[in-house]
Order: sequence, then structure tokens, then C-alpha cells
Amino acid sequence: MGPEQRRFRADTLLGEEPLEIQLNGAAYTVTMRTPGDDVDLALGLLHSEAVISTAEDTVTAKHCTDSDLNVLDVTLRVTAPPPRTGFTVSSACGACGTSSLDALWEYLTPRLRYEIASDPVSVEVPVLTGVPEKLRAAQRTFSRTGGSHGAALFTSDGDLLCVREDVGRHNAVDKVIGWALREGRLPLNGNLLAVSGRVGAEIVQKAAMAGIPVLAAISAPSTLAVDLAQRWGMTLAGFVRDGRCNVYSGFDRIADDVTT
Amino acid sequence: MGPEQRRFRADTLLGEEPLEIQLNGAAYTVTMRTPGDDVDLALGLLHSEAVISTAEDTVTAKHCTDSDLNVLDVTLRVTAPPPRTGFTVSSACGACGTSSLDALWEYLTPRLRYEIASDPVSVEVPVLTGVPEKLRAAQRTFSRTGGSHGAALFTSDGDLLCVREDVGRHNAVDKVIGWALREGRLPLNGNLLAVSGRVGAEIVQKAAMAGIPVLAAISAPSTLAVDLAQRWGMTLAGFVRDGRCNVYSGFDRIADDVTT
Repeated sequence: MGPEQRRFRADTLLGEEPLEIQLNGAAYTVTMRTPGDDVDLALGLLHSEAVISTAEDTVTAKHCTDSDLNVLDVTLRVTAPPPRTGFTVSSACGACGTSSLDALWEYLTPRLRYEIASDPVSVEVPVLTGVPEKLRAAQRTFSRTGGSHGAALFTSDGDLLCVREDVGRHNAVDKVIGWALREGRLPLNGNLLAVSGRVGAEIVQKAAMAGIPVLAAISAPSTLAVDLAQRWGMTLAGFVRDGRCNVYSGFDRIADDVTT
Repeated sequence: MGPEQRRFRADTLLGEEPLEIQLNGAAYTVTMRTPGDDVDLALGLLHSEAVISTAEDTVTAKHCTDSDLNVLDVTLRVTAPPPRTGFTVSSACGACGTSSLDALWEYLTPRLRYEIASDPVSVEVPVLTGVPEKLRAAQRTFSRTGGSHGAALFTSDGDLLCVREDVGRHNAVDKVIGWALREGRLPLNGNLLAVSGRVGAEIVQKAAMAGIPVLAAISAPSTLAVDLAQRWGMTLAGFVRDGRCNVYSGFDRIADDVTT
């Protein structure tokens, strides 16, 4: 490539800045995120971590000052938990006989508030395979930057309810769930959550906390994502692209079943 | 899509399981990762978090038992730090006048051990644009699962030194840096790190801790990734694909400069 093939031009980048979430005035966690929808992000994150379950568990959620939008204080009606450290698996080395996967399962499952397996919703294949185009069309930030992950909530008929974008895929999901919590829509039974990329265990866990029965990802799921979806009775579709998809769990929610 | 278009078949999924990292027998953190190269992952993570700086800072790093490969104990020569909580930005609300970005900068920069700005290495454009094909060819897990992030270390001539894959992009980078630490190759001046996806601040920070002067991403960088790369004097290229790339920082390391 010679100099004549070089060009200097402006490029639009995806924003990334740290957001400190305070609970009742004390630091809880710092997350890197794309600024915007910060209240939704905080509420969704707190919901996924079982700190709150409805919007009524919070009094206010606002940026501390107008000049610094990277600190958000959430006032809870309850005592704030200690700063977040993530989950810890049984740590005594003598307990290593217990599989970490079982420990994870035993940690996560009791926190679920909604039963998913019995959700009778069904989704037709064209609705599922139509998700990527609708998600991409709604991702305005991606169109400009090529850098954002997207998450979107749909009805089982494929109508878009909410779309959010972020530099972190888990943040995009938190923002969608925070929106639903603010709107009083939880649990999200009968709905479909779509994510723009791959799907790991953390995304499945967040969806399960919100009672979402169908999760569709444009790209690949991980083993643990499939394992958790199967255990919790969630429908998980991956590689939803080019008019096709792979269904890894909860086949009976896919309408026009092969057994009919 | 009718039933005749449905097929049941086995699919190869990308592994994801929790790994608990213990330091001197005490829990430090739990991370979701793709099993494999766990020692590299732990050493790289500890290096990125400034817990260790060379392989000599560790005595042993091994799975606790043969039956549970999800707990890894690292014996340090020094006192272990308390369990990991991530960085915290100045949290007193009265201090909100301090921008969180400045606080992040002041937190990260003193931990850097190596100077990057003065690294005189240059990389020719064909080397840079040749990275995606070499990375993809070396990503054996991606070929099977379509679900892994990849990170690879190259010489400035484009020779592949090490490739690692993981469900988490930060883990793939930690595994590469852990490998380099084990091999006594730090600091990685004169080398190029390539990542298969987007690049956020965390990846730039890990690369900077290892003294890497050139970072190339197949997809988009974030604002903060570019900001940190510019401040630390790292060359950052994004959208390295289809024989082109965008260079966001450290232009003078790109050989055949437009000014010549």
C-alpha cells in the first residue's frame, strides 16, 4: 500500500467510559459502558444481581451532578449490599470434590424469581429468523460506529419493544431489562430477547432473572449457556442468521413443530 | 419453514465454565472462561492486575485436584492481595468534580511497568493487513464452534508467536500474556498483538501492562481504547479487514508513512 492509498479522515467511535454505581451514597461497582441509558443500565444490573426486584425497590436513580455523568446514585428502600465482588465458588480446597459447575448452579438458581419452564408462549420460525434484520435496523449506534453490541426485546409476534446498545454485550442486556423494570413489565414472560453477538452464561442468567422464555443470538452460544437454558427451561436459539437458526433448548416453543 | 426443512444434528459448542483462581490458598476471583490454558489465563490476569510482574513472582500454579479442573491455586512468593473487586473510582459524592476518566487514568497509569511511547518498532502495512487471515487460520476452536474470541502475538514481521482462544475476549488476551510471562518474554516491546473482535479500554490496558507497542483489532475500537492508546503512545489499528485498516494512534510506527 503506497502513500496514495492513505487517507486521513474523521471516524465516529463508540463511546466507552466508566460508570460508578453508588447505592445509598456508597460505592457498589464500576462498570465500563457506553454513556446513555445509565439509569436503565443500573436498574438492570441491580435486578440481575438480585439487589432489587421491582422499580418500587428504588426511590431515586440519578447522576450525582450535572457536570459528571459518570457517577450514578441509586437510593434504595432497603439496606444496600456491600460492594459487588461477583459470585464466589466454594473456595476451601478441601471442598474441591464439589464441581464448580454445581456450585454455580446452586448459587444462581435460588435467586430466580420467575418460573420459565412453564411459559406456554410459542414463536414461529419466521419471527425468529426475522430478528437479526430488525435488530440491525434498530441499532443506530452500530450503523455509525460498527462497534456496539445490541440487545432488543420483542413480543412473540416479532414486534420490537425496546432496543439498547453498548460497548459491552451484558450492558446492552442490562439496559433492556432496566427499561422493562422501569416500565413495570417484569416478568417478561411471553417475550423474546435478541442479542447481536454470542451468548454466554451471563446473558442467559440475566434473561432468566427477568423471566424471559426465549433468547435468540445472532452468533454462537457456549456450553454453559446451553446448559443453564436447558436446566431452566428457556428456549435458546443461536446462529440466527441468513434465514436459519440452531435451537439448543426448549424446542417445543418453536411453532410448526417437526412432530406435528 | 416447514418441518421438512428441520434437521436434528449434533453441534460443537464452545466450552464455558467458571474458574476460581486462588492465591496462596485463598479465593481471589472467579472468571467464566473456556477451559484450557488455565495457568496462562491466571498468570496473564494476575499480570494485568499488577499482582505479579514476572514468572519468578510465582512458586507454583496448578489445579487443586485432578478431578476438578475449575479451581486453580497460584502460590505467590509475596503476600496475596485481598479478593479482587476491580478498580474503584473516587466514590465520595463531594469529589464528583473529579472526572471519572481522570480517576481511571490516575489509577491505571502508575501501574504500568514499561514505557511504550519510545518503542521504535515499525510495522509495514501488509504485515498489519495480513493479520486477520493468520489469526483466523490459527483459531482452531473458532473453526469448530464459531464462538471463540482469539488473540495472537506476532513479531513486527508478522510471524505468529502464540495464539489463544476463549469465550471472553479479555481471557484470550490474558492467556497470550500469561504465555509470554511464563516464557520470560516480557516486556513485549517490538511485538504486535491482534484480537479477533472489538477493542475496548480493558484490552489496551492489558497490552500496555505487557509493554506491547502495536495493537490490531479486526473490528471497532471504543473512544476510551483510543484515548488510552494515545496517552500511552501505543499504535492502535482497528477494522483491520479486507486489506485495509484504520489507524487511530501511533501513526509513526506504520512504515511507508504518508509524509515520506
